[in-house]
Amino acid sequence: MKWRLLFGLLAMIAMVPLFSQTEDDRITIRSFYDEALTSRQSYHWLKDLCAIGPRLSGSESSLQAIHWVKGVMDTCGFDRVYLQPTLVPHWERGNPEKAILYDSKGGEYPLNVLAIGGSVATPPGGITAEIIEVPSLMAIDDIPREEIEGKIVFFNPPFDQTNIGTGASYGSNVGTRAQGAVKASQKGAIASVIRSVSSGDDDAPHTGTGHYEADVDSIPAAALGVRSADIVQHVLKLDPHAKMHLEMSCKWFEDAPSFNVIAELRGSEYPDEIIAMGGHMDSWDVGEGAHDDGAGCMHALGALKLLVDQGVTPKRTIRAVMFINEENGTRGGEEYADQAVKLGEKHLVAIESDAGGYSPRGFGITADEEQRLKLESWLDYFPKNTISYMSKGGGGVDIGPLHRADGTPMIGLSVDGQKMFDLHHSANDVFSAVHPRELELGTASMATLVYLLSQYGL
Amino acid sequence: MKWRLLFGLLAMIAMVPLFSQTEDDRITIRSFYDEALTSRQSYHWLKDLCAIGPRLSGSESSLQAIHWVKGVMDTCGFDRVYLQPTLVPHWERGNPEKAILYDSKGGEYPLNVLAIGGSVATPPGGITAEIIEVPSLMAIDDIPREEIEGKIVFFNPPFDQTNIGTGASYGSNVGTRAQGAVKASQKGAIASVIRSVSSGDDDAPHTGTGHYEADVDSIPAAALGVRSADIVQHVLKLDPHAKMHLEMSCKWFEDAPSFNVIAELRGSEYPDEIIAMGGHMDSWDVGEGAHDDGAGCMHALGALKLLVDQGVTPKRTIRAVMFINEENGTRGGEEYADQAVKLGEKHLVAIESDAGGYSPRGFGITADEEQRLKLESWLDYFPKNTISYMSKGGGGVDIGPLHRADGTPMIGLSVDGQKMFDLHHSANDVFSAVHPRELELGTASMATLVYLLSQYGL
Repeated sequence: MKWRLLFGLLAMIAMVPLFSQTEDDRITIRSFYDEALTSRQSYHWLKDLCAIGPRLSGSESSLQAIHWVKGVMDTCGFDRVYLQPTLVPHWERGNPEKAILYDSKGGEYPLNVLAIGGSVATPPGGITAEIIEVPSLMAIDDIPREEIEGKIVFFNPPFDQTNIGTGASYGSNVGTRAQGAVKASQKGAIASVIRSVSSGDDDAPHTGTGHYEADVDSIPAAALGVRSADIVQHVLKLDPHAKMHLEMSCKWFEDAPSFNVIAELRGSEYPDEIIAMGGHMDSWDVGEGAHDDGAGCMHALGALKLLVDQGVTPKRTIRAVMFINEENGTRGGEEYADQAVKLGEKHLVAIESDAGGYSPRGFGITADEEQRLKLESWLDYFPKNTISYMSKGGGGVDIGPLHRADGTPMIGLSVDGQKMFDLHHSANDVFSAVHPRELELGTASMATLVYLLSQYGL
Repeated sequence: MKWRLLFGLLAMIAMVPLFSQTEDDRITIRSFYDEALTSRQSYHWLKDLCAIGPRLSGSESSLQAIHWVKGVMDTCGFDRVYLQPTLVPHWERGNPEKAILYDSKGGEYPLNVLAIGGSVATPPGGITAEIIEVPSLMAIDDIPREEIEGKIVFFNPPFDQTNIGTGASYGSNVGTRAQGAVKASQKGAIASVIRSVSSGDDDAPHTGTGHYEADVDSIPAAALGVRSADIVQHVLKLDPHAKMHLEMSCKWFEDAPSFNVIAELRGSEYPDEIIAMGGHMDSWDVGEGAHDDGAGCMHALGALKLLVDQGVTPKRTIRAVMFINEENGTRGGEEYADQAVKLGEKHLVAIESDAGGYSPRGFGITADEEQRLKLESWLDYFPKNTISYMSKGGGGVDIGPLHRADGTPMIGLSVDGQKMFDLHHSANDVFSAVHPRELELGTASMATLVYLLSQYGL
């Protein structure tokens, strides 16, 4: 039996470090959650960030926010903090927009409206025209040009409430916002207004980016609050000749100088293997960009700070990247990828949080199946009711260019985002809509993921 | 090879119904989510329920709510709807409470306060006394009687923010609310006030049930808002002789008649096997009892209605039970168990939703491990980002008596409750704090669970 005893002893010796490593990791990870939930550092930073105001690319406040976040990073004890310059589009909304529905008996219905980002203005004094309601982007293809010409097209698709993940419903309708003006203009319309792409039932309009095409006349594009859209829909049934007045003074400017902001903890063993995690600093120009994507930025920055505060020396290099210009250009994400290629940087993985500051639920992975399974084997490190899956597919707009440039695997944070599209791109995306514990659970979950990646690779 | 062909054919024939059954189940389950997310029936009912006002056991409004919910059930096409009578405790808060802190330089600090449920009143005109701060319930044991006698004891334990599940932190501190007055009285105090058991940082006091013992003088018991508690704490450091004035006029009455309300769908194959799911109709007497536990009631009622609306004929009997008196007596839960034993009813399982109307995350199970594993094997039926675990341990206060009486397995719904103890038992537990999609995902998840239980047993 002696050989068995020997074997047993050898096995025990072999197991001890494994077991200890796991226990050490658990203690470290528990400290991330404890620290995040008590210090609430990400939440306090988010409050300061939101106080600066909305941060549309090219705006004065976006630059203030960039310099504010760099100033914060400079105090955190990171190994390196730097700005990465890039030019960004610069569009301004101008005066508050005006939209009024007039019926033919003299009834006036003021409507809540926002220009879609990038829209041209109306002529001074606005435009007034009859309206044609179109139930979806594609439905316009079946309507004869003579029924559209000279009118305002009103794209009015309902939001599909049946998807558990409201992002899918957003995706189904966002085409009206992005492409509506082009499709309407091609049939001779003089403006395009849409029902806001919103899961909510208030009347706050939701903006977002729209597109034009070089060979199609650019016509004004706007989004109505969903209650306003309901009013237009109902009144048109009573009075098909009701007219809409629309007035917008938005304007394009020259591309403006801006920056990604990057903080780095250098890896002790594999400094050339980079783990990049981030969110985007820019927001739309209404509300405060609290969930979209101040939360994601503070997730990444807060996670890096947790590593420092808990005395972690990562084996691989970890970056928190605050990308600029996710909303209307992705210039920050492209610049980051360009520089990575130019400098020959090797990214192990890129991670994005851009789904809101709600309770974390899982990560979505775009990587080899073997890599995904490795991530899945770590699920047990995440406390109950935080991260419960590592599912196939996921990433982010800002890390997409790097993925496309060199195949860097992508990971996106999934959250309990039932409320996200109630307030996304609207005046209601403000700091007070963020819950401290929900935000901090995201921060600690990001810290846990990058910690494990830095120790064990992918 | 012919026998192989035959075997293959037989296997295919055997598999077809299995496969179809699974697919049928998936289609049925998908219809629960689609219907709940579009009709929002539970949410609309919850709005009506909350409009009645708070529903403390024995109150007029609790009876209004009971008759309202029976009226709703009567319209739903259930097989049976009935009231189950029981007596309940009847305590009233009386006039709004008053608490003021006075320092010795003439400074006055008005404090936000609520009597703890069941408290005796102060003498008319109130009491005024010096305060002794005690950091936890147990800490009072080490303080000499002479330091406490004639004073107001101020139990001030902080809320532990490090638990991911805030229910555990609530559990750690709730003893000050339940037992504080007895412990303080035993050492000669004239009143007991506590820091509200709250995860929030506003100043709304949180009430809840308190206890007295027959052989210990009953002294007034109250809860301060956490900001008010901070003020008392800070001022006591500056001025240990600061005094508190406390005025409460609450009163006990005779036990009052009340009811559980029960709706039933009769099983087609095993009518004698009962699946009971429920929440509690009573609430505290501030706010609207929206999350606690209007949400749980509407989860159960909404789930039963989904089964009817989707044309499900359950094989086993399913009940939606609106229990009375969870908050301060459990008389409803006890009566339900007593009647079940008396009538010889056989319960397959009892399910409770009493954690709030937030996004569902899992079920907690108190049953044999074999039964839990059977439930776990159904996880794949629940859509992503709804139910992701069937963990050990769970149940509910109202179904506890049945479990203790005859061993009926218990299941409790777990939700993403990061916000729950911000508002629990306070004036902020109102309908507007409930999100329609989050509530309805709970309803559909309850429907899914009872559907599978009714078809496949436990």
